[in-house]
Amino acid sequence: MSASKGFEAALADIKWNEAGLVPVIVQDAISKEVLMMAYMNRDSLAKSVETGETWFWSRSRNELWHKGATSGHVQRIVSMHYDCDGDTILVRAEQTGAACHTGSYSCFSNQVEGIAGTASAGDSNAGAAALSSDRFAMLNQLEAVIAQRYAERPEGAYTTYLFEKGVDKILKKVGEESAEVIIAAKNQDNDELRCEASDLIFHLMVLLRERGLPLDDLMTELGHRHNKSKQSS
Amino acid sequence: MSASKGFEAALADIKWNEAGLVPVIVQDAISKEVLMMAYMNRDSLAKSVETGETWFWSRSRNELWHKGATSGHVQRIVSMHYDCDGDTILVRAEQTGAACHTGSYSCFSNQVEGIAGTASAGDSNAGAAALSSDRFAMLNQLEAVIAQRYAERPEGAYTTYLFEKGVDKILKKVGEESAEVIIAAKNQDNDELRCEASDLIFHLMVLLRERGLPLDDLMTELGHRHNKSKQSS
Repeated sequence: MSASKGFEAALADIKWNEAGLVPVIVQDAISKEVLMMAYMNRDSLAKSVETGETWFWSRSRNELWHKGATSGHVQRIVSMHYDCDGDTILVRAEQTGAACHTGSYSCFSNQVEGIAGTASAGDSNAGAAALSSDRFAMLNQLEAVIAQRYAERPEGAYTTYLFEKGVDKILKKVGEESAEVIIAAKNQDNDELRCEASDLIFHLMVLLRERGLPLDDLMTELGHRHNKSKQSS
Repeated sequence: MSASKGFEAALADIKWNEAGLVPVIVQDAISKEVLMMAYMNRDSLAKSVETGETWFWSRSRNELWHKGATSGHVQRIVSMHYDCDGDTILVRAEQTGAACHTGSYSCFSNQVEGIAGTASAGDSNAGAAALSSDRFAMLNQLEAVIAQRYAERPEGAYTTYLFEKGVDKILKKVGEESAEVIIAAKNQDNDELRCEASDLIFHLMVLLRERGLPLDDLMTELGHRHNKSKQSS
C-alpha cells in the first residue's frame, strides 16, 4: 500500500516527538547510500518543501539550519516519504559534495565489528567499498572503454579481438555467457554467478557498440517496461 | 575517514537519548532501499550483535522485540555502522518477507507531494525519474520494483509470476531472451535488439534478486574486469 499526499495532509499525519521534532533520514537518490540523519521541526519541514532543499532543526545550536548554507553542500530533494506510523521521514536527495561535517561522503563511517554471522573483522571494506556516489559509474566507464577499443583497436586488447572477429564471435560469447549464468545459478554458486553475469553484461555491451545501439536507448526501453509492469500489477 | 571497532569500543561511542534509546535505520543490503526505523536500547543492541538478527526496544509495548519473531520476517544483519556523532545506527540487513507491519516491503510508503523543484504531483515515481542527470536511474527503479515484488508478491504482476514459478522458470527466460538477442542481431534489426536486450537485462535482474546477489557486487566485478582489461591493452 502506498499513498501520495499534499503537504498539508501529510503534515496532519506526522507525529512530532516531545521536543516537536521528527527524525529525517537522508538517502542519496542516485547511489542509494544512507547519508545522514537529522531532525526537522514544523518550520524546517515547511522550508524544505517550499525550497526543495533540506532544512533541519539544529538541536545543539537551537536554530533552523539550511544544510549546506555555509559549506555549499546542499541537498536537493528528489522525493519525501514518511513511514507507516508517521514518526520518521525519508528524504531522497541529490547531495552536492559531502553530507558529513567531517568531509565524509556519508556520516555512517564507523563500522561495528564482530556481529554474529557476518564476515570477519577487518573487512572494513564491506561498507566503504559501496560508498561511491554513483552505483553504476562502472557502466559509464566500461562503455567508454568499449567505445575507445572500437574506435582505436589497440593491439592485444580482448575487446579489440572481439571487434576484429566480428558480430558472430560476439554473439557466440553472448550465448556462451548466458549458458554459464544458467549453470552457475543451478549450482547455487553466487561467486560463479557474479562472474558469469558480469561477463554476459560485458559482452552484451560490446554487442550494442558493434550494432551502434546506444545504452541509453536500452534504459529508455526498460523504463517503458517498468511503467507497463506497474500498471499490470 | 572510516573506522572499524569491536562491540565494546563501539558501545562506548553510542550516545543514548534521555530514554536510553538510539534510533536505528534498517536498509535492505541487496536493493539498498530504506526499510524502516526503530529504536534499540543497550540490551537489544547486545542481542542484535550476539544473534546477527535485529532486536529493538518497542516503545509502545515497553519490551524487547525480536523483529520477525512472530511474523517470520526477520532481518539478518549484514553490517552495522554508526554515525559521526554516535547518535544513530545504520543496519544493512537481508530482509525476509516484508519489513512493515502493514505487509509492505518498506515502511516508507507515504509520499509527500508538491515539493519545490520535484516532478509534478501524481507521479508517485518521481523518485528516480527526476534524476535526468543519472543515465542509469532506471536500473535503480527497476531493482526497487523487483525487490518489492519479491517481498510482497502482488497478484497479477509478471515479476510475482516469475518468483512463484521459481529459478528454473527465470533461467528458461534468461536462455530464451539471450537467444532472441542473437537472432535480433543477426537480423540487423536494432529495434528488435533493443527490446530483446532489455528483456534479457530485466530477467537477469530478477535472477539476481532470486539468488540474493546484490547488483552492486556485479558492478564491483565489472570494475575488476575493466581494470584487468586496461592492464592487458
